[in-house]
Amino acid sequence: MTVYNFSAGPSMLPEAVLQEAARGLRDYNGSGMSVMELSHRSRQFVQIIERAEAALRRLMRIPAEYSVLFLQGGASSQFAMVPMNLAQSATAAAYIDTGNWSQRAIAEAKLLSRAEVIASSADKNYTYIPRDYQLAPDAAYLHITSNNTLEGTRFGEIPSAGRVPLIADMSSEMLSREIDVAKFGLIYAGAQKNIGPAGLTVVIIRTDLVGRPARNVPTMLRYDVHCEARSLYNTPPCYAVYVAGLVFEWLEQMGGVAAVETLNEIKARALYDFLDQSSLFSNSVARADRSRMNVPFTAPSEELNEKFLAASEGAGLLTLRGHRLVGGMRASIYNAMPLAGVQKLVEMMQQFEYENAGGKHV
Amino acid sequence: MTVYNFSAGPSMLPEAVLQEAARGLRDYNGSGMSVMELSHRSRQFVQIIERAEAALRRLMRIPAEYSVLFLQGGASSQFAMVPMNLAQSATAAAYIDTGNWSQRAIAEAKLLSRAEVIASSADKNYTYIPRDYQLAPDAAYLHITSNNTLEGTRFGEIPSAGRVPLIADMSSEMLSREIDVAKFGLIYAGAQKNIGPAGLTVVIIRTDLVGRPARNVPTMLRYDVHCEARSLYNTPPCYAVYVAGLVFEWLEQMGGVAAVETLNEIKARALYDFLDQSSLFSNSVARADRSRMNVPFTAPSEELNEKFLAASEGAGLLTLRGHRLVGGMRASIYNAMPLAGVQKLVEMMQQFEYENAGGKHV
Repeated sequence: MTVYNFSAGPSMLPEAVLQEAARGLRDYNGSGMSVMELSHRSRQFVQIIERAEAALRRLMRIPAEYSVLFLQGGASSQFAMVPMNLAQSATAAAYIDTGNWSQRAIAEAKLLSRAEVIASSADKNYTYIPRDYQLAPDAAYLHITSNNTLEGTRFGEIPSAGRVPLIADMSSEMLSREIDVAKFGLIYAGAQKNIGPAGLTVVIIRTDLVGRPARNVPTMLRYDVHCEARSLYNTPPCYAVYVAGLVFEWLEQMGGVAAVETLNEIKARALYDFLDQSSLFSNSVARADRSRMNVPFTAPSEELNEKFLAASEGAGLLTLRGHRLVGGMRASIYNAMPLAGVQKLVEMMQQFEYENAGGKHV
Repeated sequence: MTVYNFSAGPSMLPEAVLQEAARGLRDYNGSGMSVMELSHRSRQFVQIIERAEAALRRLMRIPAEYSVLFLQGGASSQFAMVPMNLAQSATAAAYIDTGNWSQRAIAEAKLLSRAEVIASSADKNYTYIPRDYQLAPDAAYLHITSNNTLEGTRFGEIPSAGRVPLIADMSSEMLSREIDVAKFGLIYAGAQKNIGPAGLTVVIIRTDLVGRPARNVPTMLRYDVHCEARSLYNTPPCYAVYVAGLVFEWLEQMGGVAAVETLNEIKARALYDFLDQSSLFSNSVARADRSRMNVPFTAPSEELNEKFLAASEGAGLLTLRGHRLVGGMRASIYNAMPLAGVQKLVEMMQQFEYENAGGKHV
């Protein structure tokens, strides 16, 4: 049975990438060595990491004045690195609070430097993206979570921060839509959604922001150290970098970010169109702010949610359970999810609704 | 041509592990999903990480009062985490300086807390392990680098630290020899030598040492956070954990650590015995302190070193070039290096000596 995996991350990878990754795992380019066995200082691995960076630069049209880093530690480490490196001045950093992952970033920034929340959608349970806020012109930076994996929202339009560096956690949407990198001071993303395997974090930073941080910042948490060493200060997660490079090349073969964005719009529309006319399932996010990557939805009762989850699992539609903090269902439909997977999900929901619609309590 | 890879890390992995890892990469246990696609919260992945921990506990006979952590960031991150978590008191931590990696650990500890070097083998270019030192009974801890990858030394006997917690960077020798975990407060190791792929770090910590660190420690650098979450505070390097688990099970099939230690002794002896009688090649490490994992050696001139490196590469004996700080050659012969690889290297050295011995200038 073909299965479709709607996991929020780690999540589906393109079949062609997994095939090639398995070849490289057994024997890299006829070297007799696995990619995993290559020294990170070897000619072969340096080619792998440089090729990955070059492909990412092409895909996102990253301007020359930005550095690309392949790091470890996930977005959770970036929650600390951003304030430790970029908020060393007396001026507070500004954060927009759009849900669970924003809150974690904010808590870490408050722990390690000065940060203030200038807007929040907590008042409506994070079902929208706030648009009204005052940004101090001397704020250290403005931090946003551009796509909110749990809540199913996204910044459709990237906010303007003027001369204040804009920092974005794009973990769950990097490479899924065209963005203008020049609008950002720093972009970071855990790889395990649209980029590759867990254990790799991509950082894109405007090089003039890379200063010398305060004395007590651990070496491994310094952007300047990693920039200077071109991500080879210590042994990087080599195999994950290799797989990410394969994903980037797959994406180029698909036609690049613009092409995959079009496909992502079609996938998301199929799901939202169904939800909007459904008599059983619903999604509570403001329409203008809906994520194209993560679509949370619920049936009218816990019992029906559980029944649907069991039925979908049986039909090969996997990992649809919503995050433990939110409940219900969530379909994560990243770049690697084919349209056929979304269509099968919609058909399954239609069938389930037909059989269970009598149970809706509105 | 069969190749043997003498890289210091990332390094050789057992062929059986790579085969199984490639299967899991394509389809994990008939799930239709790659291991890389499994949610880290899924039943399957939780089984994978629990199985890996259980196998490691069996292999090293880790007492119940120790926690096992699967982290990111390499030994370089442990250089910071150890002092940030364990040297919060006013008492300085004690370090024994046995070379390049010790120095990095010491520099980080001095940056982030109070540390002092109580012994060093710098006086003889790190060719031996110091045995004379005074350890203050109230030192926060004693830190050693148990095997020195660049210098080719090791602590044959683990020093006694009394009631002071003993911390060991065992990156390049964990699982290669039997050790009594109960003698240590904390052991850490980057995976890319004897454990698995780069991007994974294993920490074994006596649970009573896991306190609440000072307020300004980034969450991702706190042992208490990772212990409480059983390495799932954030998304771990899932595939690397899976491969490490396969390595642990392979090691059990080989007969465990005692069996592999016997084999490692035979491999190392073959190389040292040849070096000790060679008229061309030499190793300058004090005999009692020789590493079983990393064997540095030199020919009498740069020209002969380069000639040997080119010849060995041509014969499928790869990555024998010494570390850029040291020069010459280095054979890293971790658990996954078969005896046949060492024998082929010795034969190659014999042949090279026969052809070039006239060039030795002693």
